[in-house]
Amino acid sequence: MDSAQLQAFFRRDRYAAHSGIELVEVTPGYAKARLPLSAVHLNGLDIAHGGAIFTLADFAFAVASNSHGTIAVAINTNLTIMKATRAGTLWAEAREVSKNPRLGNYTVEVRDDAGDLVALFQGLAYRKSEPLPVPPAA
Amino acid sequence: MDSAQLQAFFRRDRYAAHSGIELVEVTPGYAKARLPLSAVHLNGLDIAHGGAIFTLADFAFAVASNSHGTIAVAINTNLTIMKATRAGTLWAEAREVSKNPRLGNYTVEVRDDAGDLVALFQGLAYRKSEPLPVPPAA
Amino acid sequence: MDSAQLQAFFRRDRYAAHSGIELVEVTPGYAKARLPLSAVHLNGLDIAHGGAIFTLADFAFAVASNSHGTIAVAINTNLTIMKATRAGTLWAEAREVSKNPRLGNYTVEVRDDAGDLVALFQGLAYRKSEPLPVPPAA
Amino acid sequence: MDSAQLQAFFRRDRYAAHSGIELVEVTPGYAKARLPLSAVHLNGLDIAHGGAIFTLADFAFAVASNSHGTIAVAINTNLTIMKATRAGTLWAEAREVSKNPRLGNYTVEVRDDAGDLVALFQGLAYRKSEPLPVPPAA
Repeated sequence: MDSAQLQAFFRRDRYAAHSGIELVEVTPGYAKARLPLSAVHLNGLDIAHGGAIFTLADFAFAVASNSHGTIAVAINTNLTIMKATRAGTLWAEAREVSKNPRLGNYTVEVRDDAGDLVALFQGLAYRKSEPLPVPPAA
Repeated sequence: MDSAQLQAFFRRDRYAAHSGIELVEVTPGYAKARLPLSAVHLNGLDIAHGGAIFTLADFAFAVASNSHGTIAVAINTNLTIMKATRAGTLWAEAREVSKNPRLGNYTVEVRDDAGDLVALFQGLAYRKSEPLPVPPAA
Repeated sequence: MDSAQLQAFFRRDRYAAHSGIELVEVTPGYAKARLPLSAVHLNGLDIAHGGAIFTLADFAFAVASNSHGTIAVAINTNLTIMKATRAGTLWAEAREVSKNPRLGNYTVEVRDDAGDLVALFQGLAYRKSEPLPVPPAA
Repeated sequence: MDSAQLQAFFRRDRYAAHSGIELVEVTPGYAKARLPLSAVHLNGLDIAHGGAIFTLADFAFAVASNSHGTIAVAINTNLTIMKATRAGTLWAEAREVSKNPRLGNYTVEVRDDAGDLVALFQGLAYRKSEPLPVPPAA
């Protein structure tokens, strides 16, 4: 599965799209995504919602863990938030830490435009045998 | 701070609202919220996105941890997903496990309409001294 | 596999024994263990070491997750510590939250003699197909 | 507080000593420790016990988070185990990811003699204002 096919598959991710998340890059075991923050991402304290930060990180994790062309589903995630953010763009980079036939581990760093770490995410995925369903060419 | 004031404050949570999450109940140390699933919550595999499940759980955690009337911010969360869901309503209940002047721990169970456990969430909040900003009465 | 066989198998756990941990009870999906604290369990601040608390919780998790008679290995654990302890006995109870053919989720509560929550532990196990090796009868 | 004072303080960690853990190096925000495995570290399946791996990682985390000379206590830890180990030495390196006056985040990598990742640990510490108690010079 090449990068264009992966990008086509992940355009079907409706919650990521609804949240304004964009896939920037994908290579085997790696993904980069971004989220331009707007009022819709804020919580009651006027800072970026933990759910928006998580969804960005989880999306990058999903892309990286499915980048080998077989289905991987999230089974555990751990998120630590270090810095409150109000505006600008959040950037997430997911990197594969380990992988065996059934399990894959990923670390995702979420940074702001200044490059400061906003959140650190660990993701554990269960890897199935079935290939990722490829959408038909447009 | 009474329940009506807390509900007014959390109506200001724009990402929860954007995600279709509704606050059902809040009492000191407890909150219940729900998310009626629609196409917008699905990922590329046509199942409810981990980000949507997390945002629901995180919202219930935020309400419960702020229910004492002082600001509490999430510092660590752990989410385990047990069951894939496609439709119906997701229900989250957050319960306070422990609390001291600076830290609060919460467990959130996310269930589907059948009452099956969809995800289990642990949330750790840092408790500040400042009161939660109360929105002016309408 | 009956309770006596499980107890015989877990007597082979040398690090638990070295740490002074005792198995109190095991039924399918459930285990209870205890750790009588002594000087050997303290850290530099003279409080029970996080490693000792974890090892107690992890042991109860291992017993509960292997209680169905097939091998289960820990893949992710999350530990939140709520209370510092110096003396007395720590008690851990592991309960199965969910289980499918490949994965099992467990919550472990660690309490002191007063019944106060000392730590909360989430454990995720990968379940293999092979039976737990039964030690020969004595 | 210099490195010799920190090493003197951590020699008081009795559970680490009981477990055979040795402090190799400490600098501000960083610590390295090792655990030469022996029969005492094995579980019922004859592999290194999760509790032994955790205690090694947690010790490195404790040293790194206390390396600034004020007391830091663990409040949340997340451990993912990637590889079963039976023999040799385990090596843990703790690195500071972020730090503010109240909270510090640390990542610990545990590797075997071949350099393979055995486990990945995230630690969140609550930082107190009091200085670390310095043991009297010998």
